[in-house]
Amino acid sequence: MRQAPCVILNEPQLAENIGAVARVMANFGLSDLRLVRPRDGWPQPRAWASASGADWPLDEARVFDRLEAAVADLRLVLATTARPRETELAVLTPREAAASLAEAAEQGWPCGLVFGGERAGLTADDIVLAKGVVTIPIDPKFRSLNLAQAVAICAYEWRVLEEAGPPPAFGPRTAPAEHAELMGLFGHLETELEAGGFFHPPEKRPAMIRNLRAALSRAELTDQEVRTFRGVVTALSKGRGRVLAKLAARRKETRTGEDS
Amino acid sequence: MRQAPCVILNEPQLAENIGAVARVMANFGLSDLRLVRPRDGWPQPRAWASASGADWPLDEARVFDRLEAAVADLRLVLATTARPRETELAVLTPREAAASLAEAAEQGWPCGLVFGGERAGLTADDIVLAKGVVTIPIDPKFRSLNLAQAVAICAYEWRVLEEAGPPPAFGPRTAPAEHAELMGLFGHLETELEAGGFFHPPEKRPAMIRNLRAALSRAELTDQEVRTFRGVVTALSKGRGRVLAKLAARRKETRTGEDS
Repeated sequence: MRQAPCVILNEPQLAENIGAVARVMANFGLSDLRLVRPRDGWPQPRAWASASGADWPLDEARVFDRLEAAVADLRLVLATTARPRETELAVLTPREAAASLAEAAEQGWPCGLVFGGERAGLTADDIVLAKGVVTIPIDPKFRSLNLAQAVAICAYEWRVLEEAGPPPAFGPRTAPAEHAELMGLFGHLETELEAGGFFHPPEKRPAMIRNLRAALSRAELTDQEVRTFRGVVTALSKGRGRVLAKLAARRKETRTGEDS
Repeated sequence: MRQAPCVILNEPQLAENIGAVARVMANFGLSDLRLVRPRDGWPQPRAWASASGADWPLDEARVFDRLEAAVADLRLVLATTARPRETELAVLTPREAAASLAEAAEQGWPCGLVFGGERAGLTADDIVLAKGVVTIPIDPKFRSLNLAQAVAICAYEWRVLEEAGPPPAFGPRTAPAEHAELMGLFGHLETELEAGGFFHPPEKRPAMIRNLRAALSRAELTDQEVRTFRGVVTALSKGRGRVLAKLAARRKETRTGEDS
């Protein structure tokens, strides 16, 4: 049995919907529920009332302050959205997403599906935390899909594959890095780029960060590659610092020489 | 664009669920909603409140006293159930059901999906009104699937096929009969069998009727074939009546001859 993906609800609003999500997770064999900033706090008795007995995902639900923290231990994260924004991330159908999750689970990698809140869905900044975007094929004439229904479709596609048995093994692949490591790399890179005056003009900063993160997320870096890239960032930034220091020192020497 | 299947809710209980069904129908491009004996009557304002703006399936929903009447104009009916009972009907996954519905819709045949009420689902008698049974691959550890979620999975699978375009055409097939015609045949057959003492012992009558109906439903009889079979029933029953009448008349003659 492959470990089922966890479900991460980012800023969910209605406790009834959280309960309905737990119920449908149980229907399709999922159990790891994570909540990021639930609007009305947690726990909420109304969630249990609407779960129709699927209590265990609620009993063991974990609450996080930030989406980054909720995905920190995962090695494959997919984000669902009704409208794929301008992003360089792969856009997957629920079926393709399930295949991707099943392949990762087959390797023993913890995986997760992120769902936005009822009102606004996920922001572009949330989405680039994921390796890919899942879009449910909604009729464009009526896009308002209930949160638990979105979870149902994705969980159902997982279950169909789970029942069909494991996909053919291609031998072990190196695991992609934990998201916490990836976030560490992003933070490191962005701090150094900031220091280097990269984000210019300042109003383009958020979009520039998103584009960078999307490109790096897509690469599905391994732990070793994350370490390598952090070395790259350090080498570039501190290295340039050293070069500047040397240049400054040399100029000073020259000037001193001229003075003497 | 193929005509989407209608959704028939048999004895639905909660107006909120009817509204949630309308919403998810709209999400996936379905609009023809039919209600058989809704518990709290119809219309129910709470249904509109929970449809989140998907009003049109509710505005145009039709209410029926009997499931037979709700499916009377359809040429392909599939029934959903969590537990396939002992039945000789085909058991389909939601994906296979969608393929079957799409193929029928491609021929221009009105189709429908029947869903049971929240508490008890469909009875064995309801199910044999259908040509096949759809079973959603639920985790056996937690089978309590919300009604709107069941509709969502089936409607989603329809939508996936709809987006993928029409299936390859195999040329027009003769349409299966309208269900009203089929019901007429069943009623005719069962009345004649009753008169002929077929249902013996009496406690086995319901199961015997179900088995007959399942077998005939599976055959997907055309209008012409239904007429043919009604002729068969008439010929067998009235024909035997004629034979009996002749025999009786002959015996009478013989007796009269003896008397004279």
